[in-house]
Amino acid sequence: MSIAFFERHRATLEQAVQALQSRGYWSQFSESPSPRVYGETAADTGKAAYEARLNRPFELAQAASAGLAGSEASPYGFNLGITYPKPVIGQLLPAVSAAAASWRRAGPKAWAGVSLEIVARLNARSFEIAHAVMHTTGQAFMMAFQAGGPHAQDRALEAIGCAWQQMSLIPATADWEKPQGKHAPLQMRKSYRIVPRGIGLVIGCCTFPTWNSYPGLFANLATGNAVIVKPHPGAILPLAITVEVAREVLAEAGFAPDIVTLFAHDRDDAVARELALRPEIALIDFTGSSANGNWLERNALQAKVYTEKSGVNQIVIDSTDDLQGMARNIAFSLCLYSGQMCTTPQNIYIPKDGIRTPEGHASFEAVTAAITDAIARLTGDAAKAVEVLGAIQNDGVRQRIEAARTRGKVLLDSIALQHPQFAEACIRTPLVVQVDANSAVTEEFFGPVSFVIPVDDTTMAVTLAERIAQRHGALTLSGYSTDPQVKDALADAAANAGVALSLNLTGGVFVNQSAAFSDYHGTGANPAANAALADAAFVADRFRVVQTREPVSAPAAN
Amino acid sequence: MSIAFFERHRATLEQAVQALQSRGYWSQFSESPSPRVYGETAADTGKAAYEARLNRPFELAQAASAGLAGSEASPYGFNLGITYPKPVIGQLLPAVSAAAASWRRAGPKAWAGVSLEIVARLNARSFEIAHAVMHTTGQAFMMAFQAGGPHAQDRALEAIGCAWQQMSLIPATADWEKPQGKHAPLQMRKSYRIVPRGIGLVIGCCTFPTWNSYPGLFANLATGNAVIVKPHPGAILPLAITVEVAREVLAEAGFAPDIVTLFAHDRDDAVARELALRPEIALIDFTGSSANGNWLERNALQAKVYTEKSGVNQIVIDSTDDLQGMARNIAFSLCLYSGQMCTTPQNIYIPKDGIRTPEGHASFEAVTAAITDAIARLTGDAAKAVEVLGAIQNDGVRQRIEAARTRGKVLLDSIALQHPQFAEACIRTPLVVQVDANSAVTEEFFGPVSFVIPVDDTTMAVTLAERIAQRHGALTLSGYSTDPQVKDALADAAANAGVALSLNLTGGVFVNQSAAFSDYHGTGANPAANAALADAAFVADRFRVVQTREPVSAPAAN
Repeated sequence: MSIAFFERHRATLEQAVQALQSRGYWSQFSESPSPRVYGETAADTGKAAYEARLNRPFELAQAASAGLAGSEASPYGFNLGITYPKPVIGQLLPAVSAAAASWRRAGPKAWAGVSLEIVARLNARSFEIAHAVMHTTGQAFMMAFQAGGPHAQDRALEAIGCAWQQMSLIPATADWEKPQGKHAPLQMRKSYRIVPRGIGLVIGCCTFPTWNSYPGLFANLATGNAVIVKPHPGAILPLAITVEVAREVLAEAGFAPDIVTLFAHDRDDAVARELALRPEIALIDFTGSSANGNWLERNALQAKVYTEKSGVNQIVIDSTDDLQGMARNIAFSLCLYSGQMCTTPQNIYIPKDGIRTPEGHASFEAVTAAITDAIARLTGDAAKAVEVLGAIQNDGVRQRIEAARTRGKVLLDSIALQHPQFAEACIRTPLVVQVDANSAVTEEFFGPVSFVIPVDDTTMAVTLAERIAQRHGALTLSGYSTDPQVKDALADAAANAGVALSLNLTGGVFVNQSAAFSDYHGTGANPAANAALADAAFVADRFRVVQTREPVSAPAAN
Repeated sequence: MSIAFFERHRATLEQAVQALQSRGYWSQFSESPSPRVYGETAADTGKAAYEARLNRPFELAQAASAGLAGSEASPYGFNLGITYPKPVIGQLLPAVSAAAASWRRAGPKAWAGVSLEIVARLNARSFEIAHAVMHTTGQAFMMAFQAGGPHAQDRALEAIGCAWQQMSLIPATADWEKPQGKHAPLQMRKSYRIVPRGIGLVIGCCTFPTWNSYPGLFANLATGNAVIVKPHPGAILPLAITVEVAREVLAEAGFAPDIVTLFAHDRDDAVARELALRPEIALIDFTGSSANGNWLERNALQAKVYTEKSGVNQIVIDSTDDLQGMARNIAFSLCLYSGQMCTTPQNIYIPKDGIRTPEGHASFEAVTAAITDAIARLTGDAAKAVEVLGAIQNDGVRQRIEAARTRGKVLLDSIALQHPQFAEACIRTPLVVQVDANSAVTEEFFGPVSFVIPVDDTTMAVTLAERIAQRHGALTLSGYSTDPQVKDALADAAANAGVALSLNLTGGVFVNQSAAFSDYHGTGANPAANAALADAAFVADRFRVVQTREPVSAPAAN
């Protein structure tokens, strides 16, 4: 069955590998929630499936559970009322190890086939998952659909393709024949078996539970590892559905479903750290705070640890050929999901003497006004604004807005909006604060907070941006300039700081966005992440090669 | 110039990548020290060059040195009398960082071209290096030539090929065009820059200073990193010559020679650990004891650490179709360089009721006698024996022979031989000791020491071998069986323990040998090593990719 799955998706897999190597635009899963793509009934069926999850236990017949966990609250103002089985570590790990035995031996085609079928079925569940993502993360529906569904599925496929690409470089067998001058050559038959590391632990976050977890989850599965998925206590449901789908496909393919398990736990339950240090855990994929990510890197030394943590994303404004386009683009980036993206810009450097534009010189005040006006326009109509802003995921974000107000001069205040449908939803518009270059903010203010920083000149801005990204981490850097030398300087600074650079975004592409198969998400070269989604280093150490060799005169081993 | 180097060696590089993917026999550098290969005068010139090194300072015009280090003694019984510049860490690191700036930007072709030219020039110096290896490690001349010269150079080329293969999967640029339905597509021009990690530290060992150091050294250089080479205080000369050659090529190519530096230090000088923990050190390649390797893995958390440590290599004897061939093969493996190889077998499991052979049943005693007799024959003539045994590298090895004698019943004692040419050389034949399965040795006795262990049956032997390799590490596992089921069981045990398996070696291939481009050396899947030579995981995290993207409507950045 797993080979049938492989054959079903082989063409997709080959396209994925091809896309990874050319890095042009490619997407397997449509981001349009249109009935023409997903079917006339998909939207209603998906919503109903999500609603049927509420206020009851989530059934998941997995091993070694005792008791229940789960107290998720929608950022739109109600409790989900779902409970999940709560595993006992000491029983779960042996159960997973036992389940993994036949998976371990199944080989790359079975691993890829099962993984690809899981992703295809997740795609068919995109509406259900979209509502689950919306009501755990606070994303607006369209974003929850796209980022939580097809974009996350594309990242899953990318990880599977990346693993397949690497495993394909290793031959199953080789004939080795070494000449011996006048004597008969030495002849050996060799075989190379791909062996997974063991059990992978995937630790999800509360803002992008699927998008950030799928790469590690599917890189592990596609290389033969078992996976324990540990969601953030605030965003369990999207990953519980994912685990349910994975277990269903595994069982159909004749494998033990406990190859993929859910590790639900309650807030303030230290059990996750205990699990992360267990010797059976060979791989850890983490998205979340720098504190927790650094702790894992420094303590879970028995495992390969892949982290995405926090950072300070920045915009350097030198000059532009489209001031209004720039302002609109930046405003949208700051508003999108209320800045609760690891890619949202935070520090914006603008020369204190202003910049060149096609309409002539624009003063510092004119540039900042263009940006704050664009934000005000985007958020002026609450009913439309909430479809971009979404809701505030947690109280920490709200408190951060308060703290940021005191850091400088408020250029645009954050205000509360009323959601037309969810009266209890917490909605906030972006806050823009001006601070001195001397006190340029070097910690992450995750949420709808940005700082405008007047600089003496662009050189100063580039230097600051490079240093802050290098020391404090960054996933994105954005630059605006019409000057080729400035663009080169920005590219060099980005290379030195190990941060992806976007230049002159004035239209429909935003710095927050990272496209699977084309954009590396993170570089692994600054403190914001120790890995990139997805590259060879992200997959190649999740498996090992064990070889057997024997002289050909003797009958070969299997 | 570096591009000229690249063009000069491009065909070799492409062959190397091809060889890596097919894993059949391939070697770029001839292992024959014949004048027909290396030239009529090469042997004499190389010896004279080595001799000219003795009893004087080794000139290396590298930055930031103060004072001298070096007190190497040949295991053949004399002091080399060579001193080396001793770097000051606090000055060396900034000097290397400064030198690395232009190297960092030079790009994959320059990195590969310079690396390949260095290896080609090392090949031309193989005789000089052979003498240097012989008189630091104690290897016999032929082994010092082959393993220290062409085989090490092949491993260097393998690492360069592996790095090139991975970097080649990443396009320099991409055109990204995302359809927008009825609207114009979004179009972006993207570029991907390969950025090295920084400075790599390569820590050599005293038995295979070049073979074990070249993979890390050249994997670093080929991915644009600077390299500090820290030899074992007992085997500096071969790596000093290597560094000299590297610096010469770098200078010719227009780069600062301090991109590759030597970090010579004296025994018991703790400065190596201080260096390993410096934040500038981004990569560490280590070969040596488990104590030091584990310390680096647990403490040098700022760096990617690749280690080869100690382990317990084993032989499982179930049955054979060539008892004498098996005995001769095992005897040679035990004698070669007096067991001072990380791949030498140590524990030999033989069923207590004997084994099947073509000549009928052979008792436990008959099998052990066949092995010990073969050793005695190989070592009977001292003049011939020393060409296989080489000399004992250090006193620790000699003391280990004494300690091993007390572990059980001595089946074949280790005796001192007189070297016909070097009266003061320390030469020892292999010791074979019988121990109970209950007290099967689980620590490494590096040197000419092996343990014969009677077992109830082959199942018991396979179980023991798997458990010991899994818990205590192993680089090799050897098995003898004519039974396909036993061979399968051995292959499964090897996969579970992450150790390379050799079956039924009775001829001219020995378990100690590991061929570049075909055999993975180490798996990274048991405690003997956390990496393999050389695979994708060994190279892919030595560089990162930093991308730049810009809408195509705007003029593209460089």
